[in-house]
Amino acid sequence: MMDDIIRDVAALVEPESLRTSVSYRIRLLQIAAYKNFEAKVQGFGTAPRYFGMLKIIEANPGIPQSRLAEAIFLDRSSLVPILVSLTKEGWVERRQDARDKRVRLVHLTESGAERLGELQREVDAHESAMADGLSAGERDQLLKLLGRVDDNLRRAQEGNA
Amino acid sequence: MMDDIIRDVAALVEPESLRTSVSYRIRLLQIAAYKNFEAKVQGFGTAPRYFGMLKIIEANPGIPQSRLAEAIFLDRSSLVPILVSLTKEGWVERRQDARDKRVRLVHLTESGAERLGELQREVDAHESAMADGLSAGERDQLLKLLGRVDDNLRRAQEGNA
Repeated sequence: MMDDIIRDVAALVEPESLRTSVSYRIRLLQIAAYKNFEAKVQGFGTAPRYFGMLKIIEANPGIPQSRLAEAIFLDRSSLVPILVSLTKEGWVERRQDARDKRVRLVHLTESGAERLGELQREVDAHESAMADGLSAGERDQLLKLLGRVDDNLRRAQEGNA
Repeated sequence: MMDDIIRDVAALVEPESLRTSVSYRIRLLQIAAYKNFEAKVQGFGTAPRYFGMLKIIEANPGIPQSRLAEAIFLDRSSLVPILVSLTKEGWVERRQDARDKRVRLVHLTESGAERLGELQREVDAHESAMADGLSAGERDQLLKLLGRVDDNLRRAQEGNA
């Protein structure tokens, strides 16, 4: 009985190498953030998962599929089924480039653009909850440091390609 | 022709709200980091994806399945198929708790522990590449700020549960 209690309250041993691993902390944070977001945001189909991509399409109307894939670190074969789902759900549409029929240009639909505004409000609330208690300076510092890690990865990706 | 060239070199417009979103930057970083890692690390089955979890099992031999799920932000139903795969691949084994037959305790196998050491070296190389150019102080600062975001999410998760 006492043993059970002791085991139940015993703190988990977090391996030192994980506690100080940037890649692990980022991975875990991302899982936690996504689960938290998913629990709060309902009724937007698969769009919450691809919110960032939809914002990129919004800011770059008619972006070629291949550039979109690049921007979010996906290869084209992974991007296509995502765009198919988002097309079925009425968020985006793909049009053939008049100048090069092999190129597919991606646009938000009118209703997609509207609903993206609603989704934005949910995302803003999530973002505020995540950054709760961080000063503006700390938030900037975090974004800058993440940006440098991002640069390292982009360079490494170019090296692999 | 000139049009094509201009379009090809035109910079992607990155929406301001994404550039300054901690959750988005973390999400994108995680995808990039994982793709980069996956491209480099071959021959370890599904273990690279669950490296952090395997390290937690190593540091907490016989950890109950439910606590393991909690530690990595997964619910039990998501954890079970992962443990089934890792069991088949010879990384882990699950044993019934002698004191409570409903509880399953997770251990590394002997060969799992050995191979985890090999995988660790690949992970270390990946980690160095990601944090390239960051001073020790900057790395600490990044980990501290990520830790505070993590705390926020854990609190939010408890609020949802």
